[in-house]
Amino acid sequence: MQTSPLLESLMESLRCLPGVGPKSAQRMAFQLLQRDRSGGMRLAQALTRAMSEIGHCKDCHTFTEQDICTICANPRRQQNGQICVVESPADIHAIEQTGQFGGRYFVLMGHLSPLDGIGPNDIGLDRLEHRLERETIQEVILATNPTVEGEATANYIAELCGQYGVDASRIAHGVPMGGELEMVDGTTLSHSLAGRQKIKF
Amino acid sequence: MQTSPLLESLMESLRCLPGVGPKSAQRMAFQLLQRDRSGGMRLAQALTRAMSEIGHCKDCHTFTEQDICTICANPRRQQNGQICVVESPADIHAIEQTGQFGGRYFVLMGHLSPLDGIGPNDIGLDRLEHRLERETIQEVILATNPTVEGEATANYIAELCGQYGVDASRIAHGVPMGGELEMVDGTTLSHSLAGRQKIKF
Ligand SMILES: [Zn+2]
Ligand SMILES: [Zn+2]
Repeated sequence: MQTSPLLESLMESLRCLPGVGPKSAQRMAFQLLQRDRSGGMRLAQALTRAMSEIGHCKDCHTFTEQDICTICANPRRQQNGQICVVESPADIHAIEQTGQFGGRYFVLMGHLSPLDGIGPNDIGLDRLEHRLERETIQEVILATNPTVEGEATANYIAELCGQYGVDASRIAHGVPMGGELEMVDGTTLSHSLAGRQKIKF
Repeated sequence: MQTSPLLESLMESLRCLPGVGPKSAQRMAFQLLQRDRSGGMRLAQALTRAMSEIGHCKDCHTFTEQDICTICANPRRQQNGQICVVESPADIHAIEQTGQFGGRYFVLMGHLSPLDGIGPNDIGLDRLEHRLERETIQEVILATNPTVEGEATANYIAELCGQYGVDASRIAHGVPMGGELEMVDGTTLSHSLAGRQKIKF
């Protein structure tokens, strides 16, 4: 668009958003200019504050602008004694939406990946160990992703828990609820068979 | 996400962008926080400047932060004597990309729509009339959309041009190049037949 350097710069900047190509960037820029300039200004302010003020929770390492996030600071969640280990802050969001977990979290911001030089301390396991040592924790629930790296990371943390006499558990993997058996991949189905549980009457 | 009000506010604000739902907003926010904070800050600045500084060109009404946009201010384009009338600034972009047009534009920012109370002056036709009167214009090329409203708007402007002795033309509509005839809708095909041109040897 040769009519406006500022418009070109806006379209270019919008492309830092995942999934936004030249066409969507153009549509977004025109939409904001034509119909929602106040929305665009609010977005600019939200971005500025989020990018500059959001850091990591000292306890669980998730994104927060506070020292300790609201989940970690909640006395009820502290008393619960369970810590759920996840790879990313988005996983917390997914688990919170189930309403099935009342403990606290620990966010690794990744997983062990020796080939990429990512060792235990790079994903904060020194801080997790410190918590296992210092706090009264009943159970560590390992909710890393069901990938090779996620499994290896879960195993490593389970051993760490063992050293401090803390129970470790792994979330169940298998056929998704509501899914059709024939649509599920073989690895998942193997996991599902191996992880079968006796039906109690 | 109960861990950060600023993060929630960022996700909410991202939804002012067209095509961005709760899931994409979350993915965008996490992506920026985790991997591209400087991109997020640049986007915030581009948004702030674009939303507050971009107005409309006094001559063609397209988006620009200048009084007169760079296309209208270009002496070569002024000498060309052609004005292409389009419904939106995005149409200018599309036509510029063909490299086939060396004149100036006039952006209606919509089309005539009597049922919605949108009359000639609401789409700037008083300003277009003023230009027809004052400037030396050889041809007005009507590139409004091939919709009922777009056609009606083109016809209205063609009559206006007639009053000032200025030639008006309508861009051709028909089967898209590279398209397959059997995939084209009936209205387009009718247009294509009616608009047939004699092959000259
Ligand atoms: Zn926390
Ligand atoms: Zn202009």
